Amino acid sequence: MDFPTLTGPRFDQGSVWLVGAGPGDPGLLTLHAAYALSRADVVVHDALVSEAILSLAPQAILELAGKRAGGIRTQQLRINNRLIQLARQGLRVVRLKGGDPLVFGRGGEEALALAAAGIAFRIVPGISAGIGGTAAAGIPLTHRRLARSVAFATGHDSSGDLADVDWAALSRGSEVLVFYMAQRRIGQIAERLIQAGRPPTEPVALISNATCPDQDVRISTLATAAADIAGVPAGSPTLILVGPVIALRPLLADWQQTEPMTVETAEPVRPARAEG
Amino acid sequence: MDFPTLTGPRFDQGSVWLVGAGPGDPGLLTLHAAYALSRADVVVHDALVSEAILSLAPQAILELAGKRAGGIRTQQLRINNRLIQLARQGLRVVRLKGGDPLVFGRGGEEALALAAAGIAFRIVPGISAGIGGTAAAGIPLTHRRLARSVAFATGHDSSGDLADVDWAALSRGSEVLVFYMAQRRIGQIAERLIQAGRPPTEPVALISNATCPDQDVRISTLATAAADIAGVPAGSPTLILVGPVIALRPLLADWQQTEPMTVETAEPVRPARAEG
Repeated sequence: MDFPTLTGPRFDQGSVWLVGAGPGDPGLLTLHAAYALSRADVVVHDALVSEAILSLAPQAILELAGKRAGGIRTQQLRINNRLIQLARQGLRVVRLKGGDPLVFGRGGEEALALAAAGIAFRIVPGISAGIGGTAAAGIPLTHRRLARSVAFATGHDSSGDLADVDWAALSRGSEVLVFYMAQRRIGQIAERLIQAGRPPTEPVALISNATCPDQDVRISTLATAAADIAGVPAGSPTLILVGPVIALRPLLADWQQTEPMTVETAEPVRPARAEG
Repeated sequence: MDFPTLTGPRFDQGSVWLVGAGPGDPGLLTLHAAYALSRADVVVHDALVSEAILSLAPQAILELAGKRAGGIRTQQLRINNRLIQLARQGLRVVRLKGGDPLVFGRGGEEALALAAAGIAFRIVPGISAGIGGTAAAGIPLTHRRLARSVAFATGHDSSGDLADVDWAALSRGSEVLVFYMAQRRIGQIAERLIQAGRPPTEPVALISNATCPDQDVRISTLATAAADIAGVPAGSPTLILVGPVIALRPLLADWQQTEPMTVETAEPVRPARAEG
């Protein structure tokens, strides 16, 4: 594809772009994201970013972001420091994350670390799974008659336990609730929502690998979600949606097209890894 | 810009793509959106979509979506029917909306109308102003220590009155609240949030024309937002953000880059308007 009239902004040496990769379909990258990948010297990426998307940076060194030993705090400090180190080597650094970098992506923490180190950065928003994944599953996130508020939440704290949020208020404040990375806590979450007054029959959508060829959508209820989550492909990123808009899905299913964009991948010739 | 390894999915004649244009910066279009614009026979667009973005469809007929007389209901029916009519003429139709088509964009209603008429459609998610606009204003929407839930709401019902939502629950359920198209109701909203227990000094960000060259960001408080909204450029789409993450903005401001993507526009030679 060719967009001859578009010109990207300067991507300076020694700067870091915090880039959202969207939910999976390469066609959901923004133009800024695809441009950044084509210019990067090094791409520090999360494990969930696909080979197809990484192949849009054939000239770049790839680094999988620090998933070695240590808790989230240690891992995050290691990533922050690595981004600073790479930028100080004068490289154009892309930090590539699934979804959007600032929606439960810890991009804010990375931006704060870069600013504190005096390193120029750019935030390139991405299509968050809560928006792109639900659309791909054929569920309108809002509807004038059904949902005037949507809440995005993780449902867990940084140690993985159920988050200490006001569940009754969360449930009553927004008709539609979207939970990120909450597979392991769905039983407790559903229980809290039923306690807050939602009917046990309220529909729940379990959306795994959204917008990818192996996308898996299961419609469940608050009463049965904890059992139904067991059927979801293990290790797949799963989004959990609760709300009346799920009822619209069967009305759209026969006519919705969702074919992804395809990437012709060739074996890239990558430069050697930067000094660690 | 050229992405030689990417191939878009088929855009069939007689089908409609409901496409999000993002908040304004053409670089925040997705690859699917830019591809759809390059292939469309007709683009039915909202008034807020910029000339720069429309110039990415130089071969297409442009139609401004039905903003003639009548309330929202009449207008929406007119748009639904026009999309169906254009598709039945065998055209490739792009329905282009600011932000994301399913986040308070009434794209769900259009998709339902198309499905009911037996017309194939695709939803192309866009960067919602709540995500892209806040990022451009230098405010991380979430932070592990400050915000575990974010609610997106309109704050008004379809007649423009203050929405009949459980304001106390909305306020307590999510640390961060993002209101779309709520300029005229900000005074009442702030009052409800203070009644729900938020301090009058809680920061509020008023973000107008986000990601555009005339972006305007004002930091206010719940107590003063109703007065401060008067200073916002008249007629500009304005996003209102409430929450503790606004405090991070000064820490990022000196190091954040936000230059948009530029589009070289030439006078397009457009075909004649389709029969109405």
